[in-house]
Amino acid sequence: MGGDFAPRNIVEGALACIRDPRCDFNILLVGREDAIREHLPADLPSQLSIHHADEVVDMHDSISVAMKQKKQSSMYTSLELHRDGEVHGFISAGNTAAMMALSTLILGRLPGVERPTIGTFLPSQKGPVLLIDAGANVDSKPSHLMQFGIMGSVFTEQMMSKATPRVGLLNVGEEEKKGNDASIEAWPLLKGAPINFIGNVEGRDILKGTADVVVCDGFTGNIILKFAESFPGLLKSKFYDFAERGFLHKIWAGLMGRTLKGMIRDWDYQEHGGVPLLGVNGVSIIGHGSSTPKAIMNMILRAKEMLDRQVNTTIREAMASSNTIS
Amino acid sequence: MGGDFAPRNIVEGALACIRDPRCDFNILLVGREDAIREHLPADLPSQLSIHHADEVVDMHDSISVAMKQKKQSSMYTSLELHRDGEVHGFISAGNTAAMMALSTLILGRLPGVERPTIGTFLPSQKGPVLLIDAGANVDSKPSHLMQFGIMGSVFTEQMMSKATPRVGLLNVGEEEKKGNDASIEAWPLLKGAPINFIGNVEGRDILKGTADVVVCDGFTGNIILKFAESFPGLLKSKFYDFAERGFLHKIWAGLMGRTLKGMIRDWDYQEHGGVPLLGVNGVSIIGHGSSTPKAIMNMILRAKEMLDRQVNTTIREAMASSNTIS
Repeated sequence: MGGDFAPRNIVEGALACIRDPRCDFNILLVGREDAIREHLPADLPSQLSIHHADEVVDMHDSISVAMKQKKQSSMYTSLELHRDGEVHGFISAGNTAAMMALSTLILGRLPGVERPTIGTFLPSQKGPVLLIDAGANVDSKPSHLMQFGIMGSVFTEQMMSKATPRVGLLNVGEEEKKGNDASIEAWPLLKGAPINFIGNVEGRDILKGTADVVVCDGFTGNIILKFAESFPGLLKSKFYDFAERGFLHKIWAGLMGRTLKGMIRDWDYQEHGGVPLLGVNGVSIIGHGSSTPKAIMNMILRAKEMLDRQVNTTIREAMASSNTIS
Repeated sequence: MGGDFAPRNIVEGALACIRDPRCDFNILLVGREDAIREHLPADLPSQLSIHHADEVVDMHDSISVAMKQKKQSSMYTSLELHRDGEVHGFISAGNTAAMMALSTLILGRLPGVERPTIGTFLPSQKGPVLLIDAGANVDSKPSHLMQFGIMGSVFTEQMMSKATPRVGLLNVGEEEKKGNDASIEAWPLLKGAPINFIGNVEGRDILKGTADVVVCDGFTGNIILKFAESFPGLLKSKFYDFAERGFLHKIWAGLMGRTLKGMIRDWDYQEHGGVPLLGVNGVSIIGHGSSTPKAIMNMILRAKEMLDRQVNTTIREAMASSNTIS
C-alpha cells in the first residue's frame, strides 16, 4: 500500500514478476484486499495471494505513529509475516523512515550489527560504486562505520559477484590520521575488519571508482547522493542556455541531447530498483515512492536474489569473525 | 615562495598585476631575494619591492613545523608584516594547512569568530553558490556553523554585490528538526543570526541554486567540493566510452567535445583565483598550489577588492549584532 502509485504499481509489478521466467516463487500481496483486487484479474494467478491489512502507513506518518498507532498497517503486518517465517522477504515503496524503523523493530538486527544501513550505487569510471551509509544513520560512530564497511563489502561481493571488493573510508585526505573524529577512529577498526580495506578515499575518488565500496556516515552519504542526482539537472540547464544562443545552437543541442542523455542514464540507478536495509534479520527492500511496476518487479527479484546469494548468512559470518578479531 | 611553480609564477603574477589598470597599489614580494630576482627585470618596476625571507614552508611541512621551526619563512614573515601594518593583505599559493594555521595565529581572529573559515564557489543553475566551510574545519560545532553563515553572507553580499543573500543550512531534509546533532542545534542559531536564513537545503539544492550561501561543516564541504570537481572526469570517461563504439561515434564525440567543455567550464571556478580565509583580522588569500600567473594576479586583485569592499569591517559588525541578539 506504500508509495505514490499504490496499490496499482505494486500489483502490476507483482503481475509482471510472475510472468518473468526467473519467478520460481510465490508473491503475497499485503494490504486492503478490495483495493488490491481492483488491479487484479478476477481469476487470481496461482502464484499470487492476498493477505488483508486494514491500515496504511502514509508518507507523512512519523516513526512513532507507524510503530505504535498503526499496528494493522500493511507494512507492520508484512514484517510480522516475515519475522514469523510466512514469507522470506519483504519489499515496499512506502515511507522510508518507517520502513527502516519497523524492519529493525520487528525483524531485529543480525548479531553484532548496531545500526542497520542502506547502501546505494553510484556510477563511476570503473562501474557501480556502493556508497554506504546513504542516509539511514545521520550520526554514525566509528564502530557503525566499520560495520557499514563489512556489510557493504559482503553485499557487493555476493550481489555484484565481485571478489574481495575494495573498501574505502570517505575522508578529506588520504593519510590515516586525516579527518573528523569519527573517521580517524574508524580507520583502525576498518583496517582490522575482515575486508579489503584500502584506506581513506576522497570526494574525487568516488566517481573515479578508486573503491568498490565507499563508507561514510549517513549525513554525508545522503548529501552526496542527492548532490549527485542533481547533476544531470545542471547539465540540462547549461544545455538549454546553450540552445538559447541561436538557431544553429538549438539544432546542435537537439542533436546532442539524445547522446548525452544516454551517457548520464546511469545516474538514475536508484530509480530502477530498491535498496536493501542491510543488517536486519531478514530481507527488507525499500523502493522509491514513485516506483514503476518495472521497479517493483526488480525489487522482488532482488529480494529473491539476496536470499539465493545468502547475503545475510555471509554478513553473520563476517560480523562474527570481526568480533573475534577486535 | 609557496606552490608548485614558485617563485616564478608568483613573480610573473605580480608583474602582470602591476600592468593591469586596476592596480593602484604596490606589491611586496616576500621570500629569497636571489630566487625572486631571477624572474624580475634588472630595473625593478616602482610598484614592486622585495622583502627577504630565508626559509620556505613546503607542501609537506606539518603545521607545527611551520609554526615553530620556520619563523623566518616567507609565509610567517609576510603575515607578521601584515599584522604590523606594513602590508594590507597577503596572498600565497603555499601549504594550505600552514596558511590557515599561521594566519589565525599571527593575524588573530575577528571578535566573536571562533573558527576562521574558507568558502568556495560552485556553479549552479542560478549562478555561483558559496559552499562554506569548504574544508578548513572538519569538526564543526553549531556555533561555528552559525558563524560560517554570517561570514559567508557578508562575503557574498560585499564581493558579489548580491543584496541579502539567501543562506541555507546543508542537511538531509527540509524540516527544522532533521539532521545530525550539529545541524539540528545550528538551525535556531542561524535563524537568530542577522542574515537571510532560508532554512535547511538538501544535497540536490546546491546545483539548483536554491541558496546563495550553503553552510556546512568542513568535512562534508570538502567531500562535496572534491566530488563536484571530479564530475567532468566521469563525463569525459563516458564520452570516451561512447567514442570507442565506432567510427561515426568518434566523429560525433569529436564534434560534441568542444561544446560540452564550454558547458562544464564553470566547474574549474576555484582554479581561477584563490579563496580567502574569512574570520581572521586581515586579508589572507589561499591559492591552489598549481596557480598560474593569471591566478596569482587575480588573487592579488581580489585581496585589494576585499579591502575596498570592507569585508572584514562588515563581518565585525555582523558578528557584534549577532552576539547582541544571542
